[in-house]
Amino acid sequence: MNIAVLGTGAVGRAHAARLTALGHQVTVGTRDPEATLARVNADEMGNEPFAAWLKRHPGPTLAGFAEATRNADLVINATAGASSLGALREVGEEHLAGKVLIDTATPNDYTSPVAVPLLSPWGGPCPVLDPVATDSLAEQIQRAFPATHVVKAFNTVAAHLMADPASLGEAGHTMFLSGNDADAKGQVTKLLAAYGWKDIIDLGDLTTARATEMLQPLYLTLVRVLGHEHFNLRLIH
Amino acid sequence: MNIAVLGTGAVGRAHAARLTALGHQVTVGTRDPEATLARVNADEMGNEPFAAWLKRHPGPTLAGFAEATRNADLVINATAGASSLGALREVGEEHLAGKVLIDTATPNDYTSPVAVPLLSPWGGPCPVLDPVATDSLAEQIQRAFPATHVVKAFNTVAAHLMADPASLGEAGHTMFLSGNDADAKGQVTKLLAAYGWKDIIDLGDLTTARATEMLQPLYLTLVRVLGHEHFNLRLIH
Repeated sequence: MNIAVLGTGAVGRAHAARLTALGHQVTVGTRDPEATLARVNADEMGNEPFAAWLKRHPGPTLAGFAEATRNADLVINATAGASSLGALREVGEEHLAGKVLIDTATPNDYTSPVAVPLLSPWGGPCPVLDPVATDSLAEQIQRAFPATHVVKAFNTVAAHLMADPASLGEAGHTMFLSGNDADAKGQVTKLLAAYGWKDIIDLGDLTTARATEMLQPLYLTLVRVLGHEHFNLRLIH
Repeated sequence: MNIAVLGTGAVGRAHAARLTALGHQVTVGTRDPEATLARVNADEMGNEPFAAWLKRHPGPTLAGFAEATRNADLVINATAGASSLGALREVGEEHLAGKVLIDTATPNDYTSPVAVPLLSPWGGPCPVLDPVATDSLAEQIQRAFPATHVVKAFNTVAAHLMADPASLGEAGHTMFLSGNDADAKGQVTKLLAAYGWKDIIDLGDLTTARATEMLQPLYLTLVRVLGHEHFNLRLIH
């Protein structure tokens, strides 16, 4: 498949590398490819410059958001949640219509005036979810692009686990997905299985993305408690 | 120990029965004991009348909120989240000061004007969390009763699993707790161990109760997907 991965951070890189290894043609989308390739310092999350990463992970090509998505069979939103709607508008509705879009993002608001007494586990302000409880980023994207089949997935685990669940051991751990279109969820389930996910739970329509987006505070808290991001939840039933 | 269990619903009953079996002296608190004992029909959640339950589970006594708590060494809030602050005000600050209060409740708002497109798994409106994201019921209770040691626990699982985790099998599943006082959390951890909990994670101070209260939408969604409440999450790390 021809797959567009939107975003050049840890999530985008994890998917791009794994999809390339699985034999797919991957184009990574970014706002300004020249600027992305010109960066020489690690980003604020400690990721090495994209050009250095690309040298170590040959295969994916880099393009602007619209160009990356034009011929894609499948689109993965790996942009930061606060930027996702803007990035998708740059892609353009015409390049998203009729396609499956996997939304991996968390709607982290780092600029909320609400005082949050916790620092994030990485230092700096602790993000607040926006929207929360009565709406979700996935639903916002679906409303903005009604001809696109949005599936929420991957948003509950660290980037490296999204694409390589087996690295957390044999016992199995759970991936939740949400979406309004059964065929789209079927395609995403196939991709999850190819990545190595075994325990996949379809939560229902896209309103259930609220439930997994709202795992964000538990995720951040567990990073603080455990001191790492190599964890996930397993549904026992 | 002399333990006050506030609330006569499924959560209060599960704790009262288990604590009695463990040899504790349990007083169940309710707003109006005579009215509670006079009920002859199942409540809206399908629980049998309290008097019938009490006949099958001898040991606990029933008293008004204040009377039940006056001589308690430990207090368990098993009232519905929307009623918890009111119930605790009826208990009275003087009967809560200096004591450990385990808050098991979820701040479910069933009257929110926000239209939620999901019905609850039990039919009727789907509750919306209030507060959410930037505050929690546990913190509200702590602010209202600053001399009480509030510990959030039990709120992520069904009533029957709170008091009998072993019924979900040998593999183990996780109980999270939050609180500002280390000694209080130590007491609650001992109680959890007596109930049979093996995988107990201290998430940190009471602001982390936001994280576990925000599991409510995932819980409700999983009840819908699985068709039962006999499940929990296990932290794999």
